[in-house]
Amino acid sequence: MGMESSQHAVVLLSGGLDSATTLAIARDAGYVCHALCFDYGQRHKHELDAAKRVAAALGAVEHRVTTIDLRAFGGSALTADIDVPKDRSDVTDSHDHDDADIPITYVPARNTIFLSFALALAEVLEADAIFIGVNAVDYSGYPDCRPAYIEAFQNMANLATRRGVHGNALTIHTPLIDLTKAQIIGRGIDLGVDYGLTRSCYDPAVDDRGVARPCGHCDSCLLRAQGFRQAGVADPAVSAE
Amino acid sequence: MGMESSQHAVVLLSGGLDSATTLAIARDAGYVCHALCFDYGQRHKHELDAAKRVAAALGAVEHRVTTIDLRAFGGSALTADIDVPKDRSDVTDSHDHDDADIPITYVPARNTIFLSFALALAEVLEADAIFIGVNAVDYSGYPDCRPAYIEAFQNMANLATRRGVHGNALTIHTPLIDLTKAQIIGRGIDLGVDYGLTRSCYDPAVDDRGVARPCGHCDSCLLRAQGFRQAGVADPAVSAE
Repeated sequence: MGMESSQHAVVLLSGGLDSATTLAIARDAGYVCHALCFDYGQRHKHELDAAKRVAAALGAVEHRVTTIDLRAFGGSALTADIDVPKDRSDVTDSHDHDDADIPITYVPARNTIFLSFALALAEVLEADAIFIGVNAVDYSGYPDCRPAYIEAFQNMANLATRRGVHGNALTIHTPLIDLTKAQIIGRGIDLGVDYGLTRSCYDPAVDDRGVARPCGHCDSCLLRAQGFRQAGVADPAVSAE
Repeated sequence: MGMESSQHAVVLLSGGLDSATTLAIARDAGYVCHALCFDYGQRHKHELDAAKRVAAALGAVEHRVTTIDLRAFGGSALTADIDVPKDRSDVTDSHDHDDADIPITYVPARNTIFLSFALALAEVLEADAIFIGVNAVDYSGYPDCRPAYIEAFQNMANLATRRGVHGNALTIHTPLIDLTKAQIIGRGIDLGVDYGLTRSCYDPAVDDRGVARPCGHCDSCLLRAQGFRQAGVADPAVSAE
């Protein structure tokens, strides 16, 4: 890569398959990876356990969990007391979303908040890069998953910090942004990601052994299932059950 | 102002004199004001009490306090176990700061994190504006108090949200950005701000009645004292003692 061996990256990690693949790509590019995960009052806390396992399995040098309070802001089925939608027929029609069709699972300004904390950690660590697994193909109508947004955040970030003031630019990497879910899974398998460690469900059931099982019906489960089907491989998180 | 009477603004409020003046300006411009305050593990929790009094006195329709955890990121005397500097001889030499002279009281990416939460709240409330009391004159070397930074944040914000996607731009107002501390105080007095309610000290002592008293020696106390001296008025938070 022609990169200095000591370059550090902050990698946003959720426990899902996209961010696990992103961490594998960052590590493969030679970065020393610091995983950053958020406890934001989400229903799917099993994500946090999955993120910890993924960070360890993929060689992150540390895994930080930061608690942030989004509940005061309401407005999302993931944090407020609103039912998670199930078996939506149009969820896998990813190219047909228009701007009015932003799903109820949207958390206000979520990526902006997450990237802001990543920026703070990057500044403290003197990291050169932030990796985030946003995707504009299966982007599900989230405005803060688009390339123009990421570019604008990077520009702002380099005006916000000591590092940027000194002309030493931070780069925000979005290695999944143009990939389909099936391509993401293919890339991760090439890099040795164990998708059995990842969890995507918005609304899992916890069985009597305390293990969180995906519901199989929320938007996230439907997109994940379609991705594995199109990649032509079995989902180890499902087939292990 | 030619503004619709129902326009809403999120106003970042700290309990200090700058943000109190900012709230008074936003209200004077006709906005329905929602004060947003942060509990980020700062030493100066008396700021939170001051912010509550200021929000009530200046007619904010609500005062939300959001807890965020910056302690995991370290790097600042305001949140970590580092002594607050006292009686620095160059602190009021505000025009002589160069970029290398960023004070130890700097919190990494603080304004970016605060503005990101303000953006989330603005999206939920469908607010038209965010007000922040940053200042580039007495800016003390903070990179995230400069006009170019604010402009870049606004650009990013309008790509991040449903509102921006629909072409209904959010504006970030920085009414103090070009004012000296003395001019800020003069403007606030014109608008009826009771500066006796505000607190600025980074390291106050709590007396035996539980009242927080400014130390008079930290950077913030020195800048405040200079501002009142130059404005030619007594500081009611000091003279009341």
